[in-house]
Amino acid sequence: MQRYAIIGSGALGGLYGARLAAAGHEVHFLFRSDYQHVRQHGLKVDSVWGDLHLHDVNAYQCADDMPPCDVTIVALKTTQNHHLPKLLAGPTAGGGAVLVLQNGLDVEADSAQVVGVQRTLGGCCFLCSNKVGPGHIKHIDYGRIVFGEYSPQAGVSDRAARIASELNAAGVEAIATDDLLLTRWRKLMWNITFNGLSVVCDASTDQLMDGRWGEQLSLSLVREVHAAAAACGVSIAEDAIGTTIEHTRKMVPYDSSMRLDFLNGRPMEVEAIFGNPLRAAQAAGFDAPRIEMLYRQLKVLDQLRRGSQAASASSSAAT
Amino acid sequence: MQRYAIIGSGALGGLYGARLAAAGHEVHFLFRSDYQHVRQHGLKVDSVWGDLHLHDVNAYQCADDMPPCDVTIVALKTTQNHHLPKLLAGPTAGGGAVLVLQNGLDVEADSAQVVGVQRTLGGCCFLCSNKVGPGHIKHIDYGRIVFGEYSPQAGVSDRAARIASELNAAGVEAIATDDLLLTRWRKLMWNITFNGLSVVCDASTDQLMDGRWGEQLSLSLVREVHAAAAACGVSIAEDAIGTTIEHTRKMVPYDSSMRLDFLNGRPMEVEAIFGNPLRAAQAAGFDAPRIEMLYRQLKVLDQLRRGSQAASASSSAAT
Repeated sequence: MQRYAIIGSGALGGLYGARLAAAGHEVHFLFRSDYQHVRQHGLKVDSVWGDLHLHDVNAYQCADDMPPCDVTIVALKTTQNHHLPKLLAGPTAGGGAVLVLQNGLDVEADSAQVVGVQRTLGGCCFLCSNKVGPGHIKHIDYGRIVFGEYSPQAGVSDRAARIASELNAAGVEAIATDDLLLTRWRKLMWNITFNGLSVVCDASTDQLMDGRWGEQLSLSLVREVHAAAAACGVSIAEDAIGTTIEHTRKMVPYDSSMRLDFLNGRPMEVEAIFGNPLRAAQAAGFDAPRIEMLYRQLKVLDQLRRGSQAASASSSAAT
Repeated sequence: MQRYAIIGSGALGGLYGARLAAAGHEVHFLFRSDYQHVRQHGLKVDSVWGDLHLHDVNAYQCADDMPPCDVTIVALKTTQNHHLPKLLAGPTAGGGAVLVLQNGLDVEADSAQVVGVQRTLGGCCFLCSNKVGPGHIKHIDYGRIVFGEYSPQAGVSDRAARIASELNAAGVEAIATDDLLLTRWRKLMWNITFNGLSVVCDASTDQLMDGRWGEQLSLSLVREVHAAAAACGVSIAEDAIGTTIEHTRKMVPYDSSMRLDFLNGRPMEVEAIFGNPLRAAQAAGFDAPRIEMLYRQLKVLDQLRRGSQAASASSSAAT
């Protein structure tokens, strides 16, 4: 059984780490503000997969104290990636792999710069989960992880297959893919559209999908991300467009992670989710006017909000 | 001296009507909620052109009571245009002209349907003015009116020249044009961009112009409106693009009328300012993805806001 480190034990990292720990893995969790609470009260996960309460958690406040692990899962917000050189040093000291479960495009680059491309994997989580209090996560829907080697042409590696099988054994639907780029663009069809519009239109996903205008607006963005992917050489099946819309319509009413960040005065992951894909599309000769406009609107909102409101340390969410 | 009716005596109609009255014209003002206040306290205009306080105002609460006038100025929000058949009947009973000073494209159509195209003129006001209290207007910058016949190919009519000269004599910069469509598209370069973005980015014009992202965003919209006009056969000088941006940068910090409507829970003029130009551009074969996206974002915001918040009767503004 491999030993895991969780860098960023919030709505996403806390959930998967807790499942692995409950399945018998040695899991080391890095916390920030919740550290003391988790030391005293453990880590509580209310989940559609069944509730968990880990009483004896290997919790750390400082990554330097973490032991070398076989797999280090990066589950921070990308806005914290400048801390990665310091955070990855301890847990990756033994030569283990890094699995980057962050939203956006090419978000593995920061981790790869620390440990090298050959030791880096990346993946997308299709997950509705919120942190509802210190050391307390509420996982409300979905949860699948699709991940693979960051290095293209690496195929499905043995280590990816092994991580997938350990996650599966822990009750997590995890799929090792040989096409991480396709996985990332496929998820961006949702993230660009619904993270962006939920902030700019000040609406939850169900409010967006509840009227003709929100649906047309969403569809035009889903389509443009699909076309941007194609321009970048990533061919996603045409019916993914309709599926993305239908799937969102059927979702539990949900505040996207970006909307929660915005409402709570935290920096938004604008560069990872919008800036990187936009630059990739434009470098491939595709204009992407709608993505560009949403990107710039979010940059304005992010900067005005950060200028006028102090960061709050309350709730958090992932997807 | 011609007799004027003002339909909608807010930040715009109240200002111009008061100037005409102070210059000796017989002016009849239609009020809604401010009627009683104006009957008792008159109409107060604090203005960069000099302050006015009209004590004896021909104020009406019901348009049917208004006498026939030579010129009826429509200065309502376009969201109230469904009331026009009732509001225009009295003041236009003698066969006078209607001058539509509303924002947007083809906003004269509703008035023309009541009195006929041949009796309709339209114009744009380049104006920063706010209603700051009942019967109290604060005119903070600009104020030029450019107007002309609604019927194309009518040239500068005698009646347009006469209205311009009377406005000029009242201290209002007014220019009669033979190209109303060009005037409207030229103003839309500002209105679409800054009305729309100020709502969606929750920012005043100076906040929008204060950073690189807001400026790029604004510029991309100004450019697209310029191109949409060209597609509709309206050729605006290229340097109007830079002028629009520079002019906005130098403006007094200003909340657009649409932002004030939005913040106060009033319906926004989305169809007049966005829907009509968008449909005109698309009918001419021009995609206008940015205008379309802003239009749909505003439709979503307008509908969610109207669903969740009662209309407030407080301040109002024009431009």
